[in-house]
Amino acid sequence: MRISELSERTGVSVATIKWYVREGLLAPGHRRSATQAEYDDDHVARLRLIKALGEVPGLPVQRIKAIVDLLDHPHADLVASLADALAQLPPYPAGPVAGPAPGRPSAAEALDLIGYAYDPQFPAVAQLDAALGAATAVIPFDEDTFAEYGKHLRAIAESEIGKIPDDPAAAVPYGVLGTALYEPVLLALRRLALYDAASRLLPADRPE
Amino acid sequence: MRISELSERTGVSVATIKWYVREGLLAPGHRRSATQAEYDDDHVARLRLIKALGEVPGLPVQRIKAIVDLLDHPHADLVASLADALAQLPPYPAGPVAGPAPGRPSAAEALDLIGYAYDPQFPAVAQLDAALGAATAVIPFDEDTFAEYGKHLRAIAESEIGKIPDDPAAAVPYGVLGTALYEPVLLALRRLALYDAASRLLPADRPE
Repeated sequence: MRISELSERTGVSVATIKWYVREGLLAPGHRRSATQAEYDDDHVARLRLIKALGEVPGLPVQRIKAIVDLLDHPHADLVASLADALAQLPPYPAGPVAGPAPGRPSAAEALDLIGYAYDPQFPAVAQLDAALGAATAVIPFDEDTFAEYGKHLRAIAESEIGKIPDDPAAAVPYGVLGTALYEPVLLALRRLALYDAASRLLPADRPE
Repeated sequence: MRISELSERTGVSVATIKWYVREGLLAPGHRRSATQAEYDDDHVARLRLIKALGEVPGLPVQRIKAIVDLLDHPHADLVASLADALAQLPPYPAGPVAGPAPGRPSAAEALDLIGYAYDPQFPAVAQLDAALGAATAVIPFDEDTFAEYGKHLRAIAESEIGKIPDDPAAAVPYGVLGTALYEPVLLALRRLALYDAASRLLPADRPE
C-alpha cells in the first residue's frame, strides 16, 4: 500500500510516519520508484504499536525507540530482555536506592517480607524504594497490607507469565507490551475496585 | 515553633511554606507579634502531606489543593468524598467514555464481566476505557487475564477498605492518601512481581 493508505489505516499522519522512519522507529517502505514506496501489514502493526506506546503517559519517544529496538533485537535471555524493557517505562527514579529509614523498611527488606526476588540493579527496586518513602512519610508502613499486595500481584504476574509464548521472539513483545499497556488498565481497575468495595462495605455495612 | 524550625523539621523551604500559606494549602501560623507567627504539629503534619503528594508524578499543585480542601471539608457521604478525591489524581482522561469497539468491550461491558459497580460519572471509568483502547489496539482483549485482574484487585481493595477507620473525619484522609500514595507502590511491586515470576518460571522451568 502507499503511505496515504498506511496513514488512513492507522490514523497516523503522513508527516508523522515519515518522521518515525527518519528516527528509526519504523522501517522504510519498499522502493517502487524514485518517488514511491510500498508499505505492508508489518508497517501497519508497527505503527499501531508505536501509537499505543505513545499513549502511555510520560513515555518519551526516545524510550519508545529503545523498546522498539529491543523488540527487533532481543537478548537471548528472555528475563534480561524483560528487565531492560521495563527499565524504559516511567516513572524514572531520580536517585540511587536509599537505605532503611525510621518507621519503614528498605526495598530489600520489604521484598524479603513477601518473598520476592531482589536485584538492586532492577530499576523497579529504586521505584519501590521512592514510592515507599513518599507513602510512609504520611501513612505508617503496614506489613499486612503490603503482604496482601505482594500475594495478589504475584498471582497476577504468574498468570501473565504463564501466558507468555514459548517462542522467545514472540515472548519479548508480549511481555514488554503487556507491561506497558496493561499498567494503565490495572491502575484504572484498582480505583474502580476501591469504589466498588467502598460502595458495598461503607459506611453502614462495614464487616467486622 | 517558628517558621525556621518548621522548615527544618519538614525539609520544606521557608519561601515554599509562605507560598503554601498564600495559596491556601496551609493554615497561617498563630500570630505572636507583628513579625512572628507560631506553628504547631498540625502544620508539620500538613506540610509532610503536601510534600508527599507533591512527589506523586503528574499531580499539579491545584489538584493537591483540591485534595487538601476535601480533607478539610469532606462530604457527609464517605463514598462521594472518596470518588471526588480519586477524580483529582492523574491520569486525566481527555475525552468522554467511548462506546464498544471491534475486538474489545466497552468499560461498562468489561466491568460487568467482573461484577464491578458501574457509574459512568466516576472518572476511573473513562480512564479504564482509554487504557483498554490503547492496550487492545496492540494485544487482543483476553477475558481470562482481565478476570484475574478483577479478582485480585477486588481482594486488595476489600482489605484496604476494611482498614479504613469508622470515623468519617479520619476515613477520608486515609482513603484518599492511601490511593494517591500507594498507587506508585503497587506499580513498582507489579513490575517486581513480573520479574520475580519470570525469573522463576522462564524459560526452562515453565509450567504446563
